[in-house]
Amino acid sequence: MITALGDEHFMRMALAEAEKARQSGEVPVGAVIVCNNVVVARAHNQTEILHDVTAHAEMLALTAAAGYLGGKYLTDCTLFVTLEPCPMCAGALHWAQIGRIVYGASDDKRGYCRFGREMLHPKTKVEFGVLHDECQDILQHFFRKKRLW
Amino acid sequence: MITALGDEHFMRMALAEAEKARQSGEVPVGAVIVCNNVVVARAHNQTEILHDVTAHAEMLALTAAAGYLGGKYLTDCTLFVTLEPCPMCAGALHWAQIGRIVYGASDDKRGYCRFGREMLHPKTKVEFGVLHDECQDILQHFFRKKRLW
Repeated sequence: MITALGDEHFMRMALAEAEKARQSGEVPVGAVIVCNNVVVARAHNQTEILHDVTAHAEMLALTAAAGYLGGKYLTDCTLFVTLEPCPMCAGALHWAQIGRIVYGASDDKRGYCRFGREMLHPKTKVEFGVLHDECQDILQHFFRKKRLW
Repeated sequence: MITALGDEHFMRMALAEAEKARQSGEVPVGAVIVCNNVVVARAHNQTEILHDVTAHAEMLALTAAAGYLGGKYLTDCTLFVTLEPCPMCAGALHWAQIGRIVYGASDDKRGYCRFGREMLHPKTKVEFGVLHDECQDILQHFFRKKRLW
């Protein structure tokens, strides 16, 4: 019997990726890409260690998923990410025609929503608020600690 | 005596990159990043060969420039790119705080301008239309040929 795993299950995996970022001194954001209930990519923010602004969790996961699946379109995939994607990541998700996006915490200052729904592909479904508090807490704790340094 | 090279000079290099893309069957877009009159990165679109929607010329050039310069901010750099950047690339250029962007042809359908100037960092200067006809011609010729296939 195949039991479909819920959104919270995969968001917990994305949170575990965010935790890896935190431990490396990176802004703690994590992402997981799932296709037919199978995890095809997982990644965390690595902009500091790679000196690369494009190394957001979503971008690394997109590239890994496309490599794993052997095609650049991810129409049958869901991205789970702990934070609302930024415009760069939303633009990449548009190009990938990703089937569904589930994010945890919102990002009013740097998220894509400021620029409207058209940032994403018209067929992409979006949900948010899954494990919202955990996703927000790990970020708030990180930045609070930074300010104390 | 150091002679400052003009925008056309570097746009010709970006066009040479676009030509490499065309020869590989990729949408012909090329980019060059220049810092204090020195080319620190050059790249062309490789989305097909890499099966990766994020492998736009600008993204590859950004990553290469940051690697070469050893830092992720490109405030003293100019990006020369043959086509108006898409929202993904504009988002990446925002994060990199690039000093200046010079593009050749406009992209009314897929360019970042649809979403407004705020897609870019407030300090980034933008110019366009340099070698406009050449930059547009290589793209139009590519797509015209595709439609004939």
